Amino acid sequence: MDTTAFLRAHIRTVPDWPAPGVQFRDITPLLQNPQVFRVLIDAFVHRYMAPEFRPSVVAGLDARGFIIGSVLAYELGVGFVPIRKKGKLPFTTVEETYELEYGSATVELHTDAVQPGDRVVLIDDLIATGGTMMAGRRLLEKLGAHVMEGAAIVDLPELGGSQKLLASGLPLFTLVDFAGH
Amino acid sequence: MDTTAFLRAHIRTVPDWPAPGVQFRDITPLLQNPQVFRVLIDAFVHRYMAPEFRPSVVAGLDARGFIIGSVLAYELGVGFVPIRKKGKLPFTTVEETYELEYGSATVELHTDAVQPGDRVVLIDDLIATGGTMMAGRRLLEKLGAHVMEGAAIVDLPELGGSQKLLASGLPLFTLVDFAGH
Repeated sequence: MDTTAFLRAHIRTVPDWPAPGVQFRDITPLLQNPQVFRVLIDAFVHRYMAPEFRPSVVAGLDARGFIIGSVLAYELGVGFVPIRKKGKLPFTTVEETYELEYGSATVELHTDAVQPGDRVVLIDDLIATGGTMMAGRRLLEKLGAHVMEGAAIVDLPELGGSQKLLASGLPLFTLVDFAGH
Repeated sequence: MDTTAFLRAHIRTVPDWPAPGVQFRDITPLLQNPQVFRVLIDAFVHRYMAPEFRPSVVAGLDARGFIIGSVLAYELGVGFVPIRKKGKLPFTTVEETYELEYGSATVELHTDAVQPGDRVVLIDDLIATGGTMMAGRRLLEKLGAHVMEGAAIVDLPELGGSQKLLASGLPLFTLVDFAGH
């Protein structure tokens, strides 16, 4: 099976959402078809079950990263850690603020979510400008963990995020890229 | 193993969050310990793999419901459908608004997320007032699906949500209850 082509065929492009001119890549059809969902998750499981890529923790970015990350953690037999938008985590946290096109956003991580020396795979549904993933990585590193790789279903290379993340020294694993958006 | 006692011991109570006098039940420690995470997920898998309880779709409530619901769907070999806070789903949606202590909230579901006749398990991390789960159920029923059961890790019976949901005819499956909050 050509996994990339199979998955690409089940990503829905919604024109002009959330703003005119934007082609939004909607991953929900990947989740609702059981066969496609299995192929999607297993693409990540197959990579990260290899001894050299096996993490000690999977961290997922709020909220679509939770959908992929939690299954991956369960299948690998490791813990799952949510990185959340500000104000959602009740215990003591570290936080990072990053720039958006208009304004900024802040993400948080519980201070006891990872331990120094943890090897983390950081996962989201999509890499656009890379701001959220970069902020998530900084949170994990603040607590002494090593982010081995960033993972996502979709890369939008024209938005420059994946290039920026790679240039910062973060390896990436993505399944489908879309030029134009 | 006494699953309830085991899980209860790994739920963290955060006092006075998000407001003075509230004892917040934090489920993140359940996720980050691989053994506990496995026991947690398998409690749901074991129930819903039984032929009489097996759903055709698992629907998860934004955002902690995604963490449990997606793994359950994967393990059962069925699709996963996210029910989201307003403004997060790009395709055509149905929506439901419900009352909060102060103000109201709206949740949405893609119109093609389920089909008439689908048998759905609707999952969240916690049942408090029951408002989100009731709204999620109405969304699924608007599209012709049958919500077989609501499921959650934690029930807070003193907030009356589980009683209200049961009285409305929705069966519930929860793992741990906390009196006092």
